Amino acid sequence: MKIQVPGTTANLGPGFDALGLALTCYSYLEVKPAGEKEAFSKKNLIYKSFDYFFQSFDEPTPNVIMELRGDIPSSRGLGSSAACIVGGLTVANLISGKGLSKENLLEMATKIEGHPDNVAPCIYGGLISSTEEQGRILTASFEVHPDWKFYTAIPDFELSTQDARKVLPKKISFKDGVFNISRIPLLLKALEIGDLELLRAGTVDALVQPYRGSLIDGYEKIKGFGQKYGAATISGAGPTILIITKEDLDMDEWNNFTVDFNHSWELKRYEVDREGTKLI
Amino acid sequence: MKIQVPGTTANLGPGFDALGLALTCYSYLEVKPAGEKEAFSKKNLIYKSFDYFFQSFDEPTPNVIMELRGDIPSSRGLGSSAACIVGGLTVANLISGKGLSKENLLEMATKIEGHPDNVAPCIYGGLISSTEEQGRILTASFEVHPDWKFYTAIPDFELSTQDARKVLPKKISFKDGVFNISRIPLLLKALEIGDLELLRAGTVDALVQPYRGSLIDGYEKIKGFGQKYGAATISGAGPTILIITKEDLDMDEWNNFTVDFNHSWELKRYEVDREGTKLI
Repeated sequence: MKIQVPGTTANLGPGFDALGLALTCYSYLEVKPAGEKEAFSKKNLIYKSFDYFFQSFDEPTPNVIMELRGDIPSSRGLGSSAACIVGGLTVANLISGKGLSKENLLEMATKIEGHPDNVAPCIYGGLISSTEEQGRILTASFEVHPDWKFYTAIPDFELSTQDARKVLPKKISFKDGVFNISRIPLLLKALEIGDLELLRAGTVDALVQPYRGSLIDGYEKIKGFGQKYGAATISGAGPTILIITKEDLDMDEWNNFTVDFNHSWELKRYEVDREGTKLI
Repeated sequence: MKIQVPGTTANLGPGFDALGLALTCYSYLEVKPAGEKEAFSKKNLIYKSFDYFFQSFDEPTPNVIMELRGDIPSSRGLGSSAACIVGGLTVANLISGKGLSKENLLEMATKIEGHPDNVAPCIYGGLISSTEEQGRILTASFEVHPDWKFYTAIPDFELSTQDARKVLPKKISFKDGVFNISRIPLLLKALEIGDLELLRAGTVDALVQPYRGSLIDGYEKIKGFGQKYGAATISGAGPTILIITKEDLDMDEWNNFTVDFNHSWELKRYEVDREGTKLI
């Protein structure tokens, strides 16, 4: 059994903990029954999620071997932990024959991950807004115009979500809160209709990027590069920077631009994944 | 010359200073040339906006008589000042023959009003999100499902926007800011597709209603009534409370419900105005 799980980019500027987008950046999870003496590492998040599923039904966890391969880099802000969780739960759902709905898998995945912003698009595909309301996860799906191209600038260093959350302030000004509120509708409309001016205004964020940017060596320069062609924001907890544009970025220009940086930054182009996690 | 100007309800819960919706609640502004001895009151906001238009072109302001009639109540949170501003500018635009675009009128109206959330839907009609970005007003228009019915509960007392703004905090928790951010997409989707559960979650607001509610005698009770049938939020700066529902509210039930209140509350039903300010 093999499933395909998309990477996801959360926040998209002002949408902290709310917006997430699935990209055509995939990990593949293959599951085989284990021989008696083989033991799958029980420490990783895939196994923990797989195990969580069976435990929540008070059933024994089958002995399997799972192999994860693919393109979602670890701890880079592209939803690698969401992919592990959704992957583990999805194969558990298939193997067990329980046939839980995507909505139920989302609730389980959110319990493991803590928040739904990456797991929701990882399960459903596309652009998803999500929130918790009295223990239920509510989602809404939004259109993304096919003209948009999504580039990720991925550095050679990691940034843990925990560290990225630590720098966020406990208190903000009312004005900054209202600023972000006003940008969310513009962002959604810009992504829907393909309007670059709206996108540029709609990706500005007063709550998170000003704090997280300082953790990412090269952030300001790459943001400037991205804004030349479109908009640029930190992908999820970072350090990957997402560039949204209608143009084809020139890889030679990118390599020349980043040659003197303290770190190497790989530029990759993706489209929107519109199917979410699926059996292949 | 006679124009029709819609009333507007701003915020819609979490969308402070960003979202506004035009309702089929109208004021009508009639303009006639004035006789030599007639002098139109120069103190009111209609005249000031009319005058502002001509001054901005360095042209003399024509001597006219303007009569305003209609259903938008004053200082109740239904965009009466936006209607005066947009009304005055629109007749000035027509009389002068300048033919400014709606976008230009919006920029002028925002300069007079201070923020675009009511003037934008008053000009364009429908559900509009707006913000200022480097001196320009950016707007996005969103669909509203025809099943939604908009009721306004209008009390017999006024609340000035100034007073309603004074009670807002200067600082908020990061968590409350993020809460509102997560509700905006759900609200927009709920209004678009007609989903009541999303609407109920999408109209919850952590930034404004908890503070303004205390200024409105009867707020909690009316909110409870509205939530029984749908969702309820303060309309703009208040004190009007907006109830969004798919049901027909029973006027007898309303009258019995409010009979013991300290104030009288009039319940009126409107649809979405989809045309904005126009010559009739």
